Amino acid sequence: MLNKMYRIGIDLGGTNIKVGIVNGENKIIATAKRKTLAQRPWQEIAQDIALCVKDAVAEAETDLSQCEKIGIGCPGTTNAETGVVVYANNFNGWVNIPLGEYLQNELKLPVSLSNDANCAALGEYVAGAAKNYKSTVLITLGTGVGGGVVFDGKIFEGGNPGGAELGHCIIIADGEQCTCGAKGCWEAYSSATALIREAKAKATQCPESLLCRLCEGDLENMNGIIPFKAARENDTAALEVIDQYIKWLGIGLVNMANVFRPDVILISGGICGEGTYLTDPLNTYVKKYSYGSAYTPVPQVITATLGNDAGIIGAAAL
Amino acid sequence: MLNKMYRIGIDLGGTNIKVGIVNGENKIIATAKRKTLAQRPWQEIAQDIALCVKDAVAEAETDLSQCEKIGIGCPGTTNAETGVVVYANNFNGWVNIPLGEYLQNELKLPVSLSNDANCAALGEYVAGAAKNYKSTVLITLGTGVGGGVVFDGKIFEGGNPGGAELGHCIIIADGEQCTCGAKGCWEAYSSATALIREAKAKATQCPESLLCRLCEGDLENMNGIIPFKAARENDTAALEVIDQYIKWLGIGLVNMANVFRPDVILISGGICGEGTYLTDPLNTYVKKYSYGSAYTPVPQVITATLGNDAGIIGAAAL
Repeated sequence: MLNKMYRIGIDLGGTNIKVGIVNGENKIIATAKRKTLAQRPWQEIAQDIALCVKDAVAEAETDLSQCEKIGIGCPGTTNAETGVVVYANNFNGWVNIPLGEYLQNELKLPVSLSNDANCAALGEYVAGAAKNYKSTVLITLGTGVGGGVVFDGKIFEGGNPGGAELGHCIIIADGEQCTCGAKGCWEAYSSATALIREAKAKATQCPESLLCRLCEGDLENMNGIIPFKAARENDTAALEVIDQYIKWLGIGLVNMANVFRPDVILISGGICGEGTYLTDPLNTYVKKYSYGSAYTPVPQVITATLGNDAGIIGAAAL
Repeated sequence: MLNKMYRIGIDLGGTNIKVGIVNGENKIIATAKRKTLAQRPWQEIAQDIALCVKDAVAEAETDLSQCEKIGIGCPGTTNAETGVVVYANNFNGWVNIPLGEYLQNELKLPVSLSNDANCAALGEYVAGAAKNYKSTVLITLGTGVGGGVVFDGKIFEGGNPGGAELGHCIIIADGEQCTCGAKGCWEAYSSATALIREAKAKATQCPESLLCRLCEGDLENMNGIIPFKAARENDTAALEVIDQYIKWLGIGLVNMANVFRPDVILISGGICGEGTYLTDPLNTYVKKYSYGSAYTPVPQVITATLGNDAGIIGAAAL
């Protein structure tokens, strides 16, 4: 009997279901996409995931019998042991959803499930920026701050679901209100959302600044790129926002270095497009403040390279 | 051939070298102790460790041939893979000390080495407060804040030496100066040292308080017990100090819950003598602020039970 050639990776997001067929070299050879329509009953979404898998298999001109297994990355809190989505607040009433079991029954292949940031970390580990390292922590900077941790090719899931929720480590006691209910979480300072909040506040104070002018008269146009763009032009207001942002981000990275001490820390999300303009000062910060950095290895901070493919490739490698 | 009956655990501290002979039931059957005299050359200390092992073996009325292996817990940053103490600031010039190799050559038994807090965590896991759990994080509250993490019977060492330095996670950006060089570390707020600092400051402000009076005219008498003693008598000044201390401690525990999500978190060190007066409010705090606690298991916070034996028993179990 021939070895099965492919693995299937699913990236379930609040907007889209994305499926990729992944070959033995961790390359995506075909993809398919459907709208999530996240407010539907979970069974409808799960059914569309199964159909989307079949679309991708057809696109790859193969069939399910040639596929070894399926992996799925989901937002929220997941239980990798049971294949259950414990809680996903972007979906309608998703509490203890047996998504793994559903897909296994529907597609007759073994299904593994994990958190989406975990899958992105594993994807970068097997095929991306962390490929030549033994351990990595990946941080996603988006609406929130997500985290995934991989040691020796295995995702660190924590002792129970809800572990490795790195974005909800508190970095400023009694600080900014976080969506999770606590105050001062890393996410409340280092997400793209937080950057935009701070940039808007600064632009309001400094209407003559380039930071403000790039919004073209409406601060609702502020995004995560404008502050960097203005800072690169040496706009004082933008530089203040970016310096502060990098410091907050750096504090969380120091914490990750002190907890996990991985070989490398990856930054992913739109902001990682800033490249070394972002990572150079972060590396200086992490090197300076990580515990015992005069005597012990300090993780290098680099940007992720696989973009949106990381989640699919990582899910297929679960 | 008979199975070897014993394992040897060594707890190397800044003041004493303690050795225990541990049987198959993780009970210490004999001990020996020598002064560390930490400012000596490392070879002298290592030689005294070896002699102390022989003392303990004699005390147990056995010999080294009946012992399976040796484990040693050291303060500072350790490399479990190589048996090297990478850096220990309480010792004189201890940078990259090959202590494991030295003891292996001297005593002709396999030697394992780890950080002292890691050993305490493993000791509590195999024989103490975490015995019936699958995962635990142990926090030692003393001069500093140490941490040890055990999953499925194995110490989590991080990807490189310097990992699991839990006390140096930053909980207040730009906060109190920490001895490590960073500002706002958990250790700078939750160590016994920090409690004493805050209690002294409050006592200075409130000379009529019980908190101040218990120092009997000299604030240098302040220790980690007095604030709790006065708080239990409803002394307002002491209650303010303890409430704030528990909140800072709780923030770090929330972070540990969000990163590791262990079954149980253990508090060790002298302060754990306060029992549920300490752990009840901590449990309330952790339950309230851990990520997704409405849907996911939240670790219970309890006190460690083995006291100083934890380090020896854990080292023997390495």
